[in-house]
Amino acid sequence: MELGPPGGSGPAEPGPRLRGLRGADAAASASSLSRFGAEAGCRAPAVAAVLPAGGSGERMGVPTPKQFCPILERPLISYTLQALERVSWIKDIIVAVTRENMETMKGIIQRYQHKRISLVEAGVTRHRSIFNGLKALAEDQPNCRLSKPEVVIIHDAVRPFVEEDVLLKVVTAAQEHGEIAPYFIPLQHELLYNSDVYENSIAHVWQDSEQESFGHGIKASGAIRPLVSTVISPSADSCLDHSLERARYRASEMPQAFLFDVIYDAYQQCSDYDLEFGTECLHLALKYSHIKAKLVEGSPDLWKVTYKRDLYAAESIIKERISQKVCVVMDTKEDEEHVGHCLEEMLKTELNHVKVTSGQDLQQIILEQCYNFVCVNVMTSDFEETQRLLNMLEESNLSILYPVVVISVHFLDYESVPLGQKMEKVMQIREFAKEAKKRNILLSGLLIYFPQEEQKLRESLRQGTTIISALIKERNSGLIGQLLVA
Amino acid sequence: MELGPPGGSGPAEPGPRLRGLRGADAAASASSLSRFGAEAGCRAPAVAAVLPAGGSGERMGVPTPKQFCPILERPLISYTLQALERVSWIKDIIVAVTRENMETMKGIIQRYQHKRISLVEAGVTRHRSIFNGLKALAEDQPNCRLSKPEVVIIHDAVRPFVEEDVLLKVVTAAQEHGEIAPYFIPLQHELLYNSDVYENSIAHVWQDSEQESFGHGIKASGAIRPLVSTVISPSADSCLDHSLERARYRASEMPQAFLFDVIYDAYQQCSDYDLEFGTECLHLALKYSHIKAKLVEGSPDLWKVTYKRDLYAAESIIKERISQKVCVVMDTKEDEEHVGHCLEEMLKTELNHVKVTSGQDLQQIILEQCYNFVCVNVMTSDFEETQRLLNMLEESNLSILYPVVVISVHFLDYESVPLGQKMEKVMQIREFAKEAKKRNILLSGLLIYFPQEEQKLRESLRQGTTIISALIKERNSGLIGQLLVA
Repeated sequence: MELGPPGGSGPAEPGPRLRGLRGADAAASASSLSRFGAEAGCRAPAVAAVLPAGGSGERMGVPTPKQFCPILERPLISYTLQALERVSWIKDIIVAVTRENMETMKGIIQRYQHKRISLVEAGVTRHRSIFNGLKALAEDQPNCRLSKPEVVIIHDAVRPFVEEDVLLKVVTAAQEHGEIAPYFIPLQHELLYNSDVYENSIAHVWQDSEQESFGHGIKASGAIRPLVSTVISPSADSCLDHSLERARYRASEMPQAFLFDVIYDAYQQCSDYDLEFGTECLHLALKYSHIKAKLVEGSPDLWKVTYKRDLYAAESIIKERISQKVCVVMDTKEDEEHVGHCLEEMLKTELNHVKVTSGQDLQQIILEQCYNFVCVNVMTSDFEETQRLLNMLEESNLSILYPVVVISVHFLDYESVPLGQKMEKVMQIREFAKEAKKRNILLSGLLIYFPQEEQKLRESLRQGTTIISALIKERNSGLIGQLLVA
Repeated sequence: MELGPPGGSGPAEPGPRLRGLRGADAAASASSLSRFGAEAGCRAPAVAAVLPAGGSGERMGVPTPKQFCPILERPLISYTLQALERVSWIKDIIVAVTRENMETMKGIIQRYQHKRISLVEAGVTRHRSIFNGLKALAEDQPNCRLSKPEVVIIHDAVRPFVEEDVLLKVVTAAQEHGEIAPYFIPLQHELLYNSDVYENSIAHVWQDSEQESFGHGIKASGAIRPLVSTVISPSADSCLDHSLERARYRASEMPQAFLFDVIYDAYQQCSDYDLEFGTECLHLALKYSHIKAKLVEGSPDLWKVTYKRDLYAAESIIKERISQKVCVVMDTKEDEEHVGHCLEEMLKTELNHVKVTSGQDLQQIILEQCYNFVCVNVMTSDFEETQRLLNMLEESNLSILYPVVVISVHFLDYESVPLGQKMEKVMQIREFAKEAKKRNILLSGLLIYFPQEEQKLRESLRQGTTIISALIKERNSGLIGQLLVA
């Protein structure tokens, strides 16, 4: 069921491969691979990730399981996969999906060009899904093309904003003291595999004799967050029994990381009750492998998409992230530059936190994953410049992951040219936009009134900036092909 | 500091008063007042609400305290006030704000015409702010125009989506067994007021002798929600000490309700430590007044706006809610009706869950708080119909609370009339839109191509519907005054 290539050792491709140079993400990832070694004070361990994605999404109140709910027309789980595969030192990503969603998942991997993904069948509960993922990674599985990692990350399919930073922290913490006593694990495996009746005595022996040499190191780690609400315990008659002091507790979030043998061992030992009703992997590791689990403070962005409102929040966050950079593309004729630069200046001042670059080296800007282009066609009503940009975007595959906004700007002096005459030509934009939409590019036109008077010109440009900002931030495909007027 | 009129007994005004008839909310609220009596099996108690709003919003990562963060340009707290004042049987709403935000808060109350609000100064902590609110309601405060309620609701300023339903549930639960032993409370107050040294002995006496007759009734209630994450307890060295079984615990949310004397009493008794570090009112009531607190399952919408993503979610929810109803306004000339009705039909099928009404009784529709209007000007390029609608909206005060979307639709046969000629006249819409924006009305124009051929006409109408839908759902003021083309 493996779809991606078997875990390679090269640097990550940031989702779809960009032609020519590698993306900025790949470079960033490669640098932190060495950072990994430096921080952990040891060689980089082999790391894999397991993503349980068998949930039914009942809390969301929608028929689609939440991991498959679309955000900007792309399923949520694809964002999470993208976040993990951006990290080059994660060699394999195992996703556990239900049999009925297997084809959907394969389709997602293909369409969004995800790499290093293997699929396993989900279990009935989250713990059983994780266990299936771990089994696929264990060396002793027949016909398995995956290799057993030293450290395994467990993450949720519905936490799309996980950063390399926190992944590095949990993996480093999990293997900090992590040279495994090699004589012990295989023995324990063997005995447990052969006969369940040994389980209790083994656990007992383990606890008595091995705790010092093996049990007390930190071999697991998980992200935590402060509690937002006070946690209370209800009595049987739905009254308050007691409340917990909020400051003394934390919410256990994801990602978590474990020495592979430790967590695999815990899953093999744990009871059916644990597998059915448990919610916490760290708990299993603590209970069955008697290790210490380091808790790492995570960022608010680690939250789990649970309710419909979380989908709204995720969409807004994604929209905001891909709106941070705007590229202004201009042709270089001298007399046309002034007004283009005015627009560029205004974009810089009016769009807070937005980086505006001019499109001098368009190829490079596309590679750096800029998703917003303002294409200035000074005093012309044709689309040469815009068409050239659209062609480049199509070749780059940039719009596979996110809808790319292109605004074709045309300056217009109402007084010297009748509006209608200009208009009819520019209205061709509707046809261009229909074609571009098929490639996930949202094209709109913007006519900016271009009077001779500097003051009035600045007013037009300011209005144009407002419109550009609205189009980029909303990224609404319902408004493509429109010719807006500033 | 009281700004609203003293707690009256009339039915609620839904925020700004609508001229003529009362709004639908008022009617709904009046009906549940009687429902209240029926459900509680007793007379309706006098109810007030206290809203601590002194927070600094540090978790949000923005300089503005979160309760004042704008959503569709209106501060978050105004939405919460609106939700509470919609409920006619809440007689007074006490808001605790810091001294530095007092003027801001007064401005909000005035601008959004909130009623029945009194302001008190917030304390340094949430508990101290609530205590200040309770003091203002207690009869024994000098110069207080408020009257002591039987039941007090405590809610958060940053939970804007509280429904009457859950308010009713907590209030009903809090006063279910709630005839207060009148001889006891004053005695306890008096002793505690006079001398703190009696505190322990009083509490002791109370616990021994009064628990049967007074202590064991349910006199408090609070909303709860299932936990989203597992809760864990960290050890001193930031390792996992133990994890809680998720199913056995709940998150304590708001609103909560208390017999006034019970919670006021608890606050008067409680320690400085409680006031500084406590997070749970139910806990105080349990600890100091030894009552039982009923836990009521709340809806997911009760969540607390805590992080920036919560603001995004709140904005999306609000946008979605006010986009549920679209009114299509048409003049009634017979030959123009066909195409208008086609558009209406298409809006009904293409906009899921959206109720489309024709504007036959516009006054009534405005009163029922419809925030979206499609004004059809069949085959004309003037704005008579749209202008008439804008005038009515201005008179109604509808746009005080939410931006109202008005789309002025014009049908156009390209072939018989040159585009440019039509256009220049319709471009007046930019001027209209500027004026309308001052009154929080977002006006756009939509030209729908009107060919003779039925098939092509339906295609134009479908495109028009997509654009209308985008404008209503996004409610983006950056795109006002545009003339869009379908």
